[in-house]
Amino acid sequence: MPERPFKAGRQFLLRLPRGADLWKELTAFCARRKIRCAAVHVIGATSEVTIGYYDQRTHKYHQKTFREEMEIVSCSGNVSLKEGKPFLHLHAVMGDTKLRCFGGHLFPGSNVFAAEAYIQELLGKPNVRVPDASTGLALWCAS
Amino acid sequence: MPERPFKAGRQFLLRLPRGADLWKELTAFCARRKIRCAAVHVIGATSEVTIGYYDQRTHKYHQKTFREEMEIVSCSGNVSLKEGKPFLHLHAVMGDTKLRCFGGHLFPGSNVFAAEAYIQELLGKPNVRVPDASTGLALWCAS
Amino acid sequence: MPERPFKAGRQFLLRLPRGADLWKELTAFCARRKIRCAAVHVIGATSEVTIGYYDQRTHKYHQKTFREEMEIVSCSGNVSLKEGKPFLHLHAVMGDTKLRCFGGHLFPGSNVFAAEAYIQELLGKPNVRVPDASTGLALWCAS
Repeated sequence: MPERPFKAGRQFLLRLPRGADLWKELTAFCARRKIRCAAVHVIGATSEVTIGYYDQRTHKYHQKTFREEMEIVSCSGNVSLKEGKPFLHLHAVMGDTKLRCFGGHLFPGSNVFAAEAYIQELLGKPNVRVPDASTGLALWCAS
Repeated sequence: MPERPFKAGRQFLLRLPRGADLWKELTAFCARRKIRCAAVHVIGATSEVTIGYYDQRTHKYHQKTFREEMEIVSCSGNVSLKEGKPFLHLHAVMGDTKLRCFGGHLFPGSNVFAAEAYIQELLGKPNVRVPDASTGLALWCAS
Repeated sequence: MPERPFKAGRQFLLRLPRGADLWKELTAFCARRKIRCAAVHVIGATSEVTIGYYDQRTHKYHQKTFREEMEIVSCSGNVSLKEGKPFLHLHAVMGDTKLRCFGGHLFPGSNVFAAEAYIQELLGKPNVRVPDASTGLALWCAS
């Protein structure tokens, strides 16, 4: 468990373009602006979104694509380094037109109608993801 | 898509008064403290709340008022300028007494039982909302 | 309603250990690092979690323990002082394997599969919780 404190770096309040893939667009932004560690929050709406969950026994992700209008009611997570590149880990709560909520891990495979992201860069030695045998996930090492 | 970085400004951790309208109270606070750009997060509970979704085809908001006890399980968004004044854009996940979640865009028309808000002011040239023909929404311009 | 602005303090991006109790682990971390006031956000997954709601009429919490794999789709709140110690107030949206969401106040009584927390320390006179007769809750005083 990394416990080093970070300092606040740059802060961004971004509008994502219509038609963008939410996960890919934010990943590209972080790469372009050399953001290696950050906290991220997004609200908005999509016409298509792919979310899922991680099966804790089989160690496999299951994903589902919703091809309908939905609000991004909550979307939060972080940026850290994976194989040397900025990697976004985001979880999202999506609301349908009956206001019912569906949520899980956000995957590539979305179509933004409108979205606003807040990115808080964290300065310091960035967290790095490495394979974790116990969970099968890429988690932050304790270095 | 505005991409200028902001610097961290003042940070507030507020208790909202019982009986307040969540959206109006936060808007009034931002106006009073001259907060023009910010990230916002709220948790708490309401006895009445109005949330909804934006119809991406007709370009109209649909809203529903829940007149029952609910937890504000997640509420996040931002402050930016619209017609020269601080404007709050918040999305909320509400939980009922069966712990089921309903979520969407937060509208005026709520009654706070208890609520705690975290406001992170962002210093720099504030984002400004202007009409966007493609979506019918007021979105941040690229200036 | 406390309205004093805080300044940004230390920022942490933590991996919580598998098997930890989410609420207790974060509380212990704040005590260890002497964090008295903060904003907190978590994503991850649990194999067991206890959430609930506050009955606004009887002034009692009702809680339910989900003994199944769930994603921590959203978890946010704050740290302030209660009886002189750092106290965590967190609300969580949990997603099941059908991606359905359940949400409410997070209680002790969880089992972390994997979790990543972002803690933004707030420097200044910390908010203090005192009994509030109107709601029956421990809320921030206006001092």
